[in-house]
Amino acid sequence: MEQTDRMDCRGIGSDKEASWESGVRRVVPYTPGEQPRQAGIIKLNTNECPYPPSPQVKRLAAEFETDVLRLYPDPEASLLVKSIASHFGVGEDQVFVGIGSDDVLAMAFLTFFNTDKPILFPDITYSFYDVWANLFGIPFFRPALDENFRLVKEDYLVPNGGIVIANPNAPTGICEPLSVIEEIIAKNPGSLVIIDEAYVDFGGESAMPLVEKYENLLVVQTFSKSRAMAGMRIGFAVGSTKAIRYLRDVKFSFNSYTMDAPTIAWGAASMADDAYFRETVEKVVTTREYLKKELASLGFSFPDSRTNFVFASHERVPAAELFAALKEAGIYVRYFPGERTGNHLRITVGTREQTEALLAFLRKYLK
Amino acid sequence: MEQTDRMDCRGIGSDKEASWESGVRRVVPYTPGEQPRQAGIIKLNTNECPYPPSPQVKRLAAEFETDVLRLYPDPEASLLVKSIASHFGVGEDQVFVGIGSDDVLAMAFLTFFNTDKPILFPDITYSFYDVWANLFGIPFFRPALDENFRLVKEDYLVPNGGIVIANPNAPTGICEPLSVIEEIIAKNPGSLVIIDEAYVDFGGESAMPLVEKYENLLVVQTFSKSRAMAGMRIGFAVGSTKAIRYLRDVKFSFNSYTMDAPTIAWGAASMADDAYFRETVEKVVTTREYLKKELASLGFSFPDSRTNFVFASHERVPAAELFAALKEAGIYVRYFPGERTGNHLRITVGTREQTEALLAFLRKYLK
Repeated sequence: MEQTDRMDCRGIGSDKEASWESGVRRVVPYTPGEQPRQAGIIKLNTNECPYPPSPQVKRLAAEFETDVLRLYPDPEASLLVKSIASHFGVGEDQVFVGIGSDDVLAMAFLTFFNTDKPILFPDITYSFYDVWANLFGIPFFRPALDENFRLVKEDYLVPNGGIVIANPNAPTGICEPLSVIEEIIAKNPGSLVIIDEAYVDFGGESAMPLVEKYENLLVVQTFSKSRAMAGMRIGFAVGSTKAIRYLRDVKFSFNSYTMDAPTIAWGAASMADDAYFRETVEKVVTTREYLKKELASLGFSFPDSRTNFVFASHERVPAAELFAALKEAGIYVRYFPGERTGNHLRITVGTREQTEALLAFLRKYLK
Repeated sequence: MEQTDRMDCRGIGSDKEASWESGVRRVVPYTPGEQPRQAGIIKLNTNECPYPPSPQVKRLAAEFETDVLRLYPDPEASLLVKSIASHFGVGEDQVFVGIGSDDVLAMAFLTFFNTDKPILFPDITYSFYDVWANLFGIPFFRPALDENFRLVKEDYLVPNGGIVIANPNAPTGICEPLSVIEEIIAKNPGSLVIIDEAYVDFGGESAMPLVEKYENLLVVQTFSKSRAMAGMRIGFAVGSTKAIRYLRDVKFSFNSYTMDAPTIAWGAASMADDAYFRETVEKVVTTREYLKKELASLGFSFPDSRTNFVFASHERVPAAELFAALKEAGIYVRYFPGERTGNHLRITVGTREQTEALLAFLRKYLK
């Protein structure tokens, strides 16, 4: 989503201008993936998990005592922080939580990227990085991925004000090896490096083990994909005690209470149920591999996905056409117009049944 | 909370400086009111409602279907928006919702205050206004309240980049007459005027009826006080279709999904239960009037509160001493050190029983 020229256009006030509208920030709003609520729709457009959250969440919900809602939630979200720290074997002072990883990432941009040097992230990646950079007035530069959508390591070994890498990347699904990630972190001691691991649980190599080694590393993950809790906004960052303290200081300097009480409790329960989590992820990965095999046989090509989606283009039929035909048939996938991405569909891995329905349609349509 | 000189100090990066910390934003974090969780504490320090939320919230919670949490929440929070619009008799396109009124207010600052002229708010008021102004680089000026903590209307009839008035004000509890508020709005067609009505339900005069008349008015309220839902962060703004569209555009330009799915549903149910709401508010107001009478007889003086708290100073014993003694006795109230506020306690109106316990302690201590 290219918004460089359109964001942060402050209204121009003058004493002659008598309208309150002269002070309004004008923006081009982002269009999120459609959230159709009709029954019967096959929703493969926003990379949600096709399976419900942990049964432990259901158990907690059933016994939730609404009387506590009269009180402010725990501003520290301690229960949730503890469960994340325990899961990853880090200190509680190495965990920061927020309202989805979008909130965590935006807060990290605000906290860590305050020099005049541009921050770096690829030209094709999660579409909010440049939006937040513009929002906070952070200069940025976007080195191009190579022709196979791979990261060019050398592009990140130049002077910079910070680095943001989604690994696995979106919407490509590609996971760069941890050795490349580590080299970028190690050779940039003067920059905070954010590794955005929204999709890592589906087969990526996590940088989490590196947080004890590099003070300048922040690993960001989310409950919205592998943990099936997109409906309760939970994201988190793990990093050095020092980096996390900076993040918390900035967050608490302007907003104390953000995470809802049930979200804190249910999120903690979800994180603690590792067996269910692994089972869910394994089902998604199995279906993804099946989807890849079948899509290939239908004439699609795609980078090797380590996520819960496949970024596919067809040898013959344009993505825009397929997108429209699928939607007409009640199957929602995602389509990103743009020079380098415009002939691809981003297809979320659904249940086996949803995947069969998608494939059945494609087999018929592409005949 | 005076943070003018301490916020927004961007790190100074230089090529010689090799540490990632050179880019860190340094702040002095805000200290929220204590949230003690021990049993037996009488918590009168954060203006929460002493009664639980509507039984309709309990009903919805009991039947909440956690499987939907795998999906992203409705980004428009339509259910909640509809219930607020219906309650106030305005269009759905005149309502904006956020994660507590802090989120709504911060978003309004970001959206509407983008000129070089200072925005105006009183020297003594909600402590986050200057924090957000600093965060977003908005110049501000704070006219002093008069010696009785009353707003000086003329101070707001000068060139400005926007106006923010908490009415009733915090921590004073004073409500200015609607005629004064209306004059300020009417005489500032070139500025967006925010009336922050966090406490209005406890006896204030709301500016809500003026939203149809003035395009430059934004009325902000919260579910955290009179609606007893501080644990689920919900705030909202009501304004002209045009103003609300600007707010929504800015919000959606950088964050799509913020309100949790249960929060949207339960919040809507709470708003719809007007009978319970009125009953709760009436109980709090009755206890407040009793508390005022008794405090006066103990030698306290205070502005006439139209909120769920009393801002009281004692004729003889310093507030700091009383604050410490009360805390020692397990009774938490709020104390704001500062030249003009430092001899006052802000005491939340609790249940009748909590109020009796507070008064019993004070009677004994002040003997």
